[in-house]
Amino acid sequence: MINRICIIGVGLIGGSFAIGLKNSKKTQTIIGFDTNEKNLITAKNLGVIDNYSLDIKIALKDVSIILIATPVGSFTQILKLIKPHINDKTIISDVCSTKSSVIKAIKSVYGYIPKNFVPAHPIAGKEISGIHSIDKKIFNNKLVVITPVNGITNDYSIQIITELWQSLGANIEIMTDEKHDDLLAMTSHLPHMLAFGLMDYLICNDVKYLNYAAGGFKDFSRIAASNNIMWRDICSNNSKHIIKHIKAYQQSLDKLVNLIDNKKFDELEKIFKDAKKARNDYAHNLKNE
Amino acid sequence: MINRICIIGVGLIGGSFAIGLKNSKKTQTIIGFDTNEKNLITAKNLGVIDNYSLDIKIALKDVSIILIATPVGSFTQILKLIKPHINDKTIISDVCSTKSSVIKAIKSVYGYIPKNFVPAHPIAGKEISGIHSIDKKIFNNKLVVITPVNGITNDYSIQIITELWQSLGANIEIMTDEKHDDLLAMTSHLPHMLAFGLMDYLICNDVKYLNYAAGGFKDFSRIAASNNIMWRDICSNNSKHIIKHIKAYQQSLDKLVNLIDNKKFDELEKIFKDAKKARNDYAHNLKNE
Repeated sequence: MINRICIIGVGLIGGSFAIGLKNSKKTQTIIGFDTNEKNLITAKNLGVIDNYSLDIKIALKDVSIILIATPVGSFTQILKLIKPHINDKTIISDVCSTKSSVIKAIKSVYGYIPKNFVPAHPIAGKEISGIHSIDKKIFNNKLVVITPVNGITNDYSIQIITELWQSLGANIEIMTDEKHDDLLAMTSHLPHMLAFGLMDYLICNDVKYLNYAAGGFKDFSRIAASNNIMWRDICSNNSKHIIKHIKAYQQSLDKLVNLIDNKKFDELEKIFKDAKKARNDYAHNLKNE
Repeated sequence: MINRICIIGVGLIGGSFAIGLKNSKKTQTIIGFDTNEKNLITAKNLGVIDNYSLDIKIALKDVSIILIATPVGSFTQILKLIKPHINDKTIISDVCSTKSSVIKAIKSVYGYIPKNFVPAHPIAGKEISGIHSIDKKIFNNKLVVITPVNGITNDYSIQIITELWQSLGANIEIMTDEKHDDLLAMTSHLPHMLAFGLMDYLICNDVKYLNYAAGGFKDFSRIAASNNIMWRDICSNNSKHIIKHIKAYQQSLDKLVNLIDNKKFDELEKIFKDAKKARNDYAHNLKNE
């Protein structure tokens, strides 16, 4: 059992992790740290955390694990903040949705990559955020990708972080940070860019045209209501892969345009049919989880 | 009250229209016609239609209104089928999601555009189709666009069709077929192309990558599970506008790529923020309907 863990950033992900740990009884004491005291009071009142401090020194006293669950954009700042208060046994992990950038950030702040730093990314979330959206089951049957730094990250720390996530029902997959950032750019960042881009396109035409959107539009556009700051930071931290996938995706659009333009409707229908099948298989697998 | 109406194609839209009319008590007798007798039997058993015939001559006997609710692709064939059995008082309407093409089709089959032909498009639907998905409330507070042919379509026929849809809770808007096809290409056909295109892009990479899709992907990709035949036909019947909007949308994607590439993250965040607001306003308006 972990004696004392500190969760930095008690929002949707940090809070859900905390409440999940409380349920799994894997930790003795969960300490919250956040810049927003109201948030921490709410979290304590809800029983999500055992205690909190606005003073990082107090928050980190005697903790063996620190989970950084703040948005990607404040990661460097948090690393600087915790630096004076950790020792070489403290396990540090995170939940950032870009992984090369966090490894780069820790190297830049610490001058080296600590062997107890375990970069991780739970692939779960909602388009809403904040302490009031927390959900102890949000990670159940979800994937958590851990991207250890080859030759540096130690197995013991990976094991500890793995067990914590597994106790919340998550499945662990290990891969390189580069592979993670490429995959996520394709399956998460690209769809978000398409949804933001579509709303932008409609706004640039006339936002009133949304009156003519049909039923399916509501679901399709849901991810365009995601947090703008978080997505700005994801874009700045995974630029290379996001740009690559937007450009390559445009070739798929070009293909559709060419098929329509050249009246190759059988080929077009095959694409639609394959898309329908892949999407239905995907949704079916989700249900069976 | 309408004495006798025939609904050709008793699927999601035709069936929902029928069950809605039964409730509104606007018609005496609803006759179904379909190529699939099992469908018609189900519809009759469910009380969606009063009777049916597989013989178009019998189905159309004494009807004053014909609603063609088959997919866009079979519209011309249906026009040919009904031609010998209508008179110059029969009001014909449709539910096709492209309007210039239906006007062109009727002119081509009849040699002229009948004054009692009222092109209409209820902007409602689901990604699933068929008689088992019918819903008497599907048109409630939804928009039905009517695109009369200037100088030809008579006001009386427009009025009759308007009242039928209004009795199902729908709101009517009149516009040109060109305007309709342009608007729908932007708000409905484009999003479908983006979703089909994304699934195609993922399949072309590796369909297993869908394992790394996060929560939002399920909703975003739902419209990619739409009927492939229907969407093939929409593409062939609204090629010009769909191509125009895919190409113009790609400029929105280019804009995102340029902002990311040039590290203009404040501008990027403003686009995300505006997108979020527009999407939330849209969803809010839907709730208040």
